[in-house]
Amino acid sequence: MPTSSRPDPAAPGADPADPAVRPGIPPRREDLAGVEPYGAPQIDVPHLLNVNESPFGPSAALAADLGRAVQEASAGLNRYPDREFTALRADLAEYLAAESGIPAPAVEEVWAANGSNEVMHQLMLAFGGPGRTALGFAPHYSMYPEYARDTFTRWVVADRGPAPDFALGADDVREAISAHRPHIVVLTSPNNPTGTALDPEVVRAAAEALLPSSGMLVVDEAYGEFRRDGVPSALELLGEFPNLVVTRTMSKAFALAGGRLGYLVADPRIVDAVRVVRLPYHLSAVTQAVARTALAHREELLGQVERLRAERDALFDHLVERGHVVAPSDANFVYFEPLLHRAASRHDVWEALLERGVLIREVGPEPWMRVSVGAPQDNAAFRTALEEADPR
Amino acid sequence: MPTSSRPDPAAPGADPADPAVRPGIPPRREDLAGVEPYGAPQIDVPHLLNVNESPFGPSAALAADLGRAVQEASAGLNRYPDREFTALRADLAEYLAAESGIPAPAVEEVWAANGSNEVMHQLMLAFGGPGRTALGFAPHYSMYPEYARDTFTRWVVADRGPAPDFALGADDVREAISAHRPHIVVLTSPNNPTGTALDPEVVRAAAEALLPSSGMLVVDEAYGEFRRDGVPSALELLGEFPNLVVTRTMSKAFALAGGRLGYLVADPRIVDAVRVVRLPYHLSAVTQAVARTALAHREELLGQVERLRAERDALFDHLVERGHVVAPSDANFVYFEPLLHRAASRHDVWEALLERGVLIREVGPEPWMRVSVGAPQDNAAFRTALEEADPR
Repeated sequence: MPTSSRPDPAAPGADPADPAVRPGIPPRREDLAGVEPYGAPQIDVPHLLNVNESPFGPSAALAADLGRAVQEASAGLNRYPDREFTALRADLAEYLAAESGIPAPAVEEVWAANGSNEVMHQLMLAFGGPGRTALGFAPHYSMYPEYARDTFTRWVVADRGPAPDFALGADDVREAISAHRPHIVVLTSPNNPTGTALDPEVVRAAAEALLPSSGMLVVDEAYGEFRRDGVPSALELLGEFPNLVVTRTMSKAFALAGGRLGYLVADPRIVDAVRVVRLPYHLSAVTQAVARTALAHREELLGQVERLRAERDALFDHLVERGHVVAPSDANFVYFEPLLHRAASRHDVWEALLERGVLIREVGPEPWMRVSVGAPQDNAAFRTALEEADPR
Repeated sequence: MPTSSRPDPAAPGADPADPAVRPGIPPRREDLAGVEPYGAPQIDVPHLLNVNESPFGPSAALAADLGRAVQEASAGLNRYPDREFTALRADLAEYLAAESGIPAPAVEEVWAANGSNEVMHQLMLAFGGPGRTALGFAPHYSMYPEYARDTFTRWVVADRGPAPDFALGADDVREAISAHRPHIVVLTSPNNPTGTALDPEVVRAAAEALLPSSGMLVVDEAYGEFRRDGVPSALELLGEFPNLVVTRTMSKAFALAGGRLGYLVADPRIVDAVRVVRLPYHLSAVTQAVARTALAHREELLGQVERLRAERDALFDHLVERGHVVAPSDANFVYFEPLLHRAASRHDVWEALLERGVLIREVGPEPWMRVSVGAPQDNAAFRTALEEADPR
């Protein structure tokens, strides 16, 4: 057959030992060969401190309201959902104004998707692509290179400053932009995995440096609500910079990781471009109802943010006191370099913690580790397990 | 600044009159310039017959169960959902076995996403991409070229046979595959917008023709449950062809367009590749709960399929009787070429129907139109309005 003579390095014959290219099984895209799916282990242990979830489930009253909202929405589930989810966008705009003190954005300036994952994917799809470059600063969230890979955007990385501060200054950002001339820059504040919030002057420097080339600055504020008092949000700069996008999520502060709702605020023309690449009806009627209900209960949910900030500060102090090196944190997790006694590596520590029912995360440069801030009993269990995991 | 000298055809200066490239607003990907978002009008009229939704909302009992399921799932909404949604995949496998008489697929052979939109996007992302080609047969579902565009896969089109049958034979498919040497072929059965189901010999011919090059055959059975008695599903061929993927959706037969759940069945190595490009936690805990509840109520939901099939056959007969040219349909819609009297075009007919509260769809070659099968009162309203819209 003519088709069988098509030259294709991943076609049968390329590596008969590899089951992924066994005759008949279509070959993946070449750059995905051998790649494993992204994801932290989903293990059932008593203290889940590995993916920065809130330890606090919704109250019984909120759970009942969520059920009621979905029951009501169900009457129309045979119909496609509102493709523009206008009511949800208005609620998000109103929430952002209340949270950060900015004037409420217009509905046309707000966008949402199934997790900030999908928001970032849509942004890179609309504004990245072949021949375009996105720049991040390491250590950074592990998914950024995947958004780039799956939109065929070139991903380049500059370094944050040295541990334990992992600082990023205005000059660092200007230099990296000048060196890489990116179409998109991703800054994360507070940063994952380091916990570091950015000075607004750094955000401003990045937005200004990108302005002449109409480069886009995305500030990922997934952990924004956990920032310490007096730390501003990049939302405050939206009026000044037409190339600025601020992304947020309901997974963390709203304790809604299972509900999958990420969102962004930006100039309406940026939102318009995202609307071109979104899959139609990407946000289900159920997701819209659940997110709106959670927003209506924000007093309960954001009350937990206060508790977690206090727990975080106590955990930071404790780790410093015990001699570990700790990065200052504006997030709901703490990044630390364990002081190794008998353990040879962070992986030994990680395993010994897991044996004690405490799951944390090995992420970023060795031997740094990230622990999510849990409920008081989780954090106590972590402290005890860490002592036992690597005794002096 | 050095960045401002970057050559970029879409950068400021390219077209100062275009607000999308106004200084400071980041320019979209070049191939998206001027593109409008996909989507049928969402207009509130009495008879919505334009996007092939089921006219039947869930019963009060089912709506209550959906609410209860979400209330229960809410207890864990602070946690990320099961990334592998194993329970839902098992339920889908069991349903498919019952619906089509095939042995139940393994969980590893089933995959799901937020609508079959996302399933198709993931397939093209994992198996398409730059330098690869996907082939479809026109008239086809309007979104296929968008999946290709957004995964940088080349989209090529061959023609279906002439109206009113829009037939597709084994030889047509073999010839098109030989001519275009595609990496992916998309066949739709029943086809949207024509309603035509494919003979299994055509599916078999495509799978066989693709096998030597390990090309992938995707059979989109979004409307599969509406096929007439005796028409087989491509699911029956899965055991024979490792390069075959069958996609389905809960939007149509399960009357769950608002819930957003599409799925596929294929060799586990195909599913594994899709897992690499899926965004982590893409299916919310709420979506999983809603889909599982709907599957558990399938007796109620699939009972409506029978009613719709009977309504469809009656609508087909009526349109033929009135002198219109009508394509035979195995779906929940009817594709027809209106016999024009005073109306000059299908758009005149479409507008006159809308004035009478009936929304249908102008899609595919002029002057063909597609009308979804609604409840008896919707279909009656359509018949009356069509007479009035273009009287003799």
